[in-house]
Amino acid sequence: MERLKVGVFGGSGYGGSELLRLLLGHPGVELELVGAHTHAGSRVDAVHPNLRGLTSLEFVETKVDARCEGLDVLFLSLPHGESMKLTPSLPEGLKVVDLTGDFRLRDEEVFRRYYKREHTCFSLQERYVYGLTEVNREALVGAQRVANPGCFATCVGLGLYPLVKHGLTKGRVFVDAKTGSSGSGAKPSAGTHHPKRVNSFYAYKSFAHQHLPEILQGMKEVRGDWEADVVFQTHSAPMVRGIFATIYATLSRSMEVADVARCLEETYGEQPFVRLVGDGVVDVNWVKTTNFADIGFALEGDALIVFVAIDNLVKGAAGQAIQNMNLMCGLEETMGLWLPGTHP
Amino acid sequence: MERLKVGVFGGSGYGGSELLRLLLGHPGVELELVGAHTHAGSRVDAVHPNLRGLTSLEFVETKVDARCEGLDVLFLSLPHGESMKLTPSLPEGLKVVDLTGDFRLRDEEVFRRYYKREHTCFSLQERYVYGLTEVNREALVGAQRVANPGCFATCVGLGLYPLVKHGLTKGRVFVDAKTGSSGSGAKPSAGTHHPKRVNSFYAYKSFAHQHLPEILQGMKEVRGDWEADVVFQTHSAPMVRGIFATIYATLSRSMEVADVARCLEETYGEQPFVRLVGDGVVDVNWVKTTNFADIGFALEGDALIVFVAIDNLVKGAAGQAIQNMNLMCGLEETMGLWLPGTHP
Amino acid sequence: MERLKVGVFGGSGYGGSELLRLLLGHPGVELELVGAHTHAGSRVDAVHPNLRGLTSLEFVETKVDARCEGLDVLFLSLPHGESMKLTPSLPEGLKVVDLTGDFRLRDEEVFRRYYKREHTCFSLQERYVYGLTEVNREALVGAQRVANPGCFATCVGLGLYPLVKHGLTKGRVFVDAKTGSSGSGAKPSAGTHHPKRVNSFYAYKSFAHQHLPEILQGMKEVRGDWEADVVFQTHSAPMVRGIFATIYATLSRSMEVADVARCLEETYGEQPFVRLVGDGVVDVNWVKTTNFADIGFALEGDALIVFVAIDNLVKGAAGQAIQNMNLMCGLEETMGLWLPGTHP
Amino acid sequence: MERLKVGVFGGSGYGGSELLRLLLGHPGVELELVGAHTHAGSRVDAVHPNLRGLTSLEFVETKVDARCEGLDVLFLSLPHGESMKLTPSLPEGLKVVDLTGDFRLRDEEVFRRYYKREHTCFSLQERYVYGLTEVNREALVGAQRVANPGCFATCVGLGLYPLVKHGLTKGRVFVDAKTGSSGSGAKPSAGTHHPKRVNSFYAYKSFAHQHLPEILQGMKEVRGDWEADVVFQTHSAPMVRGIFATIYATLSRSMEVADVARCLEETYGEQPFVRLVGDGVVDVNWVKTTNFADIGFALEGDALIVFVAIDNLVKGAAGQAIQNMNLMCGLEETMGLWLPGTHP
Repeated sequence: MERLKVGVFGGSGYGGSELLRLLLGHPGVELELVGAHTHAGSRVDAVHPNLRGLTSLEFVETKVDARCEGLDVLFLSLPHGESMKLTPSLPEGLKVVDLTGDFRLRDEEVFRRYYKREHTCFSLQERYVYGLTEVNREALVGAQRVANPGCFATCVGLGLYPLVKHGLTKGRVFVDAKTGSSGSGAKPSAGTHHPKRVNSFYAYKSFAHQHLPEILQGMKEVRGDWEADVVFQTHSAPMVRGIFATIYATLSRSMEVADVARCLEETYGEQPFVRLVGDGVVDVNWVKTTNFADIGFALEGDALIVFVAIDNLVKGAAGQAIQNMNLMCGLEETMGLWLPGTHP
Repeated sequence: MERLKVGVFGGSGYGGSELLRLLLGHPGVELELVGAHTHAGSRVDAVHPNLRGLTSLEFVETKVDARCEGLDVLFLSLPHGESMKLTPSLPEGLKVVDLTGDFRLRDEEVFRRYYKREHTCFSLQERYVYGLTEVNREALVGAQRVANPGCFATCVGLGLYPLVKHGLTKGRVFVDAKTGSSGSGAKPSAGTHHPKRVNSFYAYKSFAHQHLPEILQGMKEVRGDWEADVVFQTHSAPMVRGIFATIYATLSRSMEVADVARCLEETYGEQPFVRLVGDGVVDVNWVKTTNFADIGFALEGDALIVFVAIDNLVKGAAGQAIQNMNLMCGLEETMGLWLPGTHP
Repeated sequence: MERLKVGVFGGSGYGGSELLRLLLGHPGVELELVGAHTHAGSRVDAVHPNLRGLTSLEFVETKVDARCEGLDVLFLSLPHGESMKLTPSLPEGLKVVDLTGDFRLRDEEVFRRYYKREHTCFSLQERYVYGLTEVNREALVGAQRVANPGCFATCVGLGLYPLVKHGLTKGRVFVDAKTGSSGSGAKPSAGTHHPKRVNSFYAYKSFAHQHLPEILQGMKEVRGDWEADVVFQTHSAPMVRGIFATIYATLSRSMEVADVARCLEETYGEQPFVRLVGDGVVDVNWVKTTNFADIGFALEGDALIVFVAIDNLVKGAAGQAIQNMNLMCGLEETMGLWLPGTHP
Repeated sequence: MERLKVGVFGGSGYGGSELLRLLLGHPGVELELVGAHTHAGSRVDAVHPNLRGLTSLEFVETKVDARCEGLDVLFLSLPHGESMKLTPSLPEGLKVVDLTGDFRLRDEEVFRRYYKREHTCFSLQERYVYGLTEVNREALVGAQRVANPGCFATCVGLGLYPLVKHGLTKGRVFVDAKTGSSGSGAKPSAGTHHPKRVNSFYAYKSFAHQHLPEILQGMKEVRGDWEADVVFQTHSAPMVRGIFATIYATLSRSMEVADVARCLEETYGEQPFVRLVGDGVVDVNWVKTTNFADIGFALEGDALIVFVAIDNLVKGAAGQAIQNMNLMCGLEETMGLWLPGTHP
């Protein structure tokens, strides 16, 4: 088998760092090109010393030029708004997995409201498949361009999908999501300053998080008559990796624990990266550094609580991006990703 | 002023440790007696080396004998179920602040269901004032016996109180609460094993937490016609101190941000230990090691989210117990507790 | 008793934050003035939300003007090099505790080499008493100006003092020191970025740390014929507060454990803030948030290992500064500082 | 290629857990058998939920029976003292990698003193090759039984090896070593209780750590005339994974930085798992979850400081055990271990 030639733009951030970690060990690809605006010319392992000895690549400028021509796949792990600048000049035949929020939303006005910027090439959006793999697998097989989901949108989307698909809920759904500090990126800031973050827990972006419209759009595509009434609150937790979502719903009909379990099993029983947790505990600790999503639930009367844990940098970013690349390029879905989590 | 003579039973756990820390610096009391079943005969500062140099006390057995006679106040910071064994033999005149769950619930059947044990002296329960200070201050002034609230019940009760008092909500309320590892006590266990807990986030006791009936009972006493339909989910977060509660409610009438702010201000404006956070951020980091509760909120349409942060060991246990003692004994409410939080 | 009027310049950093925390609770002082260059005009509790409700002060510019005239004591908790700019214009009668490194070293050339800057008013240096309280107490009583020691210099100096004073060591001494992230200050940086720092341990500033000459100078003043041959290596540890120093020395004469214990006891037996730990464990956890230094040791043959733990922000900065202020102004040495450590 | 059939005894501890994580992804082996005394009959992924979906194995009793006959390699990751009980009955042809301390020391009296127990089959010790791979590679190729080094012994041994080999030091060497909480094992204890450990730093086992004689023995075999005068002090640091060793030595002859660098390069230039860090920083963060040892140094005059960082569970245990298995069985040395570290 010939290895795919892949490139990563935005290789100095945490999403990029995780793409490098996983792609360097992926048996089906050759990492050819790593772009990072501020580190062009530096060795990759000078910026990511965990990769010392594993690569001799140097960062290049994140610009579209002849080097992109020879690639099979390009990952864009850039800040929001940077992808739309490069995208119009990307070669036609190049497969693209875009990890930014630039091409996820199908409604330009919604994009403008949540991302607080104008889109400069919105007409290209229709060419993108939304890459929540377990929901859109068929469209992803062989796809040319994929808008990789946001980390919260992945976690919450996977939790809601069985409920929406089977029409289990009625009325408003409340989603309480908690993320680790790696979700804030590689750039130091007040919120990720170690002396503060280690014993810090707080809410942010009430009613305004940009992953909310992405969640609603995705689920409306699953079931058009879904009410899509979701209160979504994100929190910062003092861990490094992981998102834990607690989803509170009211059942639309009387159900037993076994009924709900059956709906989850029917939805995810064959999905390699979703692990249904029955007796055990859903904990970010068991998914960290992996591409797995662990899902469990609790039920009393008509109140249903669904728990989902993912690693925000893997299933919530780089891992799902590679999972999608595998499907886009005809590789085994789990290739390069079938890795046990590290514990402790 | 003559100092009150106080004793602590259960001085080796974290609630007890925190009582000792605060009582040793309290200008109105003399710490006379510290009981701890398993450490009787040991120096207090051998078990709590943070107290080296600050006390030469030794632990005694936690039994009621002549030494209790000379006390003005006794704190019971024992495991649930231990307090009811000692209480019937306590001297009549002794003021008691009971930090266990033994005398909080007014319904014996509810006690049995949530604590999974029989009560051995339930008839004594009616002598207890429920010690959620900001709600029950009047009854606490001069009280003889106080059932100090649970940590979650304090945090959630303080968040719900303005809503219930002013009749702001309709329908089900969802409460998503997160606690630090100190909430699990001083005894090492799998859930507080450092290699696991540092990057761990998980839910526990779905629909079954013993603080739920305590919350409902307390709020029903505020407003008898309150629906009391609460889904309460607790989580373990990888921090040491602090509880953060996110309370999701649906408004019963149309309100603006200023209206909600007014209800909070009306409820808590004069309360020394509740800090209403307007522009700032409610974060456990800003209340840790203090007796403060920080409260904020967000509103969109009829969806209201209330945020409350406390230190589970202080406002959620030892601090509120001393605040109650101050009221019971005619001291200034803030005495010994007016301490800035430590940060970083 | 009339309260001292005190001011703090540099109130937004961690040293300043800790000064505010301690001074607000100090019964002998009134905090009148808090300066912070970048936050002038902001409320102090907007920058330090742990102080919400405890102060209504606003930050002012850090410049010497009429407001300084009315003060009894001014703390300078500024970046290195900033103090020497202000100092020449400070009122003569004002007592000053300078927490920067600007006036600690008595040799201008050494200052230049280690701080990598020119001193602009070195002639003023001779007016400063070096504020390692347990070593220089007599000179500190009533002193007008004090150069408060560096955090490492405090920790290591306290560990070396009994050895140097009693002439216990011969040859080179090796000092391995470890500090928490708060030692890097309030400004976020790569080294204190939460996702990295939580599982990070590394050495820095080999042979070049500016606290080394301060340690040597201090100990040479204790005993002029001391060899002053010290290898000093600092490390960053993934905790927030605390310095732990492990001091490796070779004994100059044959000694038993009891002999060494006697030297420590003779040196520190009467010192309120040094706790000699015999059977117990020296751990930063037991001193954090306090002004205590815990000291212990181990001995085998002629190899002596001394362990010292302090809180870098308290005994290593703000606490010792206040301890010195107490001595300078005739207050009880422990006033405002006799606080138990927080644990957990 | 036929896969090796391997078994692990002691699969529920952290060393065992890490063996399972690495062996499940090792392309040259089939994991056939996992023994764990207290969990026999349980699913492996019930005890290690990070392995959910990756294995359906169940734990068996750790006893030698017919199942061991079919194995090619058995890893013994048991508590000290447990291995010597099983070893006499192990099949002759079975290759064994023993991760306990039972067969590392060649002097029975030294074993008795440091492990505080009698050895029940000391005559078997001579059949073991000491598995510090970079030092003993030749003897390990094709070896039948390997005593895998202790975690500290690996870290310190790798740091000392170039110095001893090239005869660089004279006089006493001081070693200050710091370990994460995973070094204390999977069983919760006071020292690894999250509320305490997160801000805790302390020394333990002064002059008495059982890895000291192992280090001395290993280095004496490298150079018989080495003085072997080492003061070795271990510390607990509040991280999960990693050992950082700071080695203080006095040079036996005048050297420049380039000379020392050359000695390290000569020793480790061809070793796949030792990374010499020149300009960069040696930090446990960059080796965690990997089999790499990062080594750097600083020099001034005749004082040399060597820094070594490893992951105690990988290069310090399971990873080196597999590296040794690869050599014992003729596999590529890096097989199954060439994995980038996870960061953040």
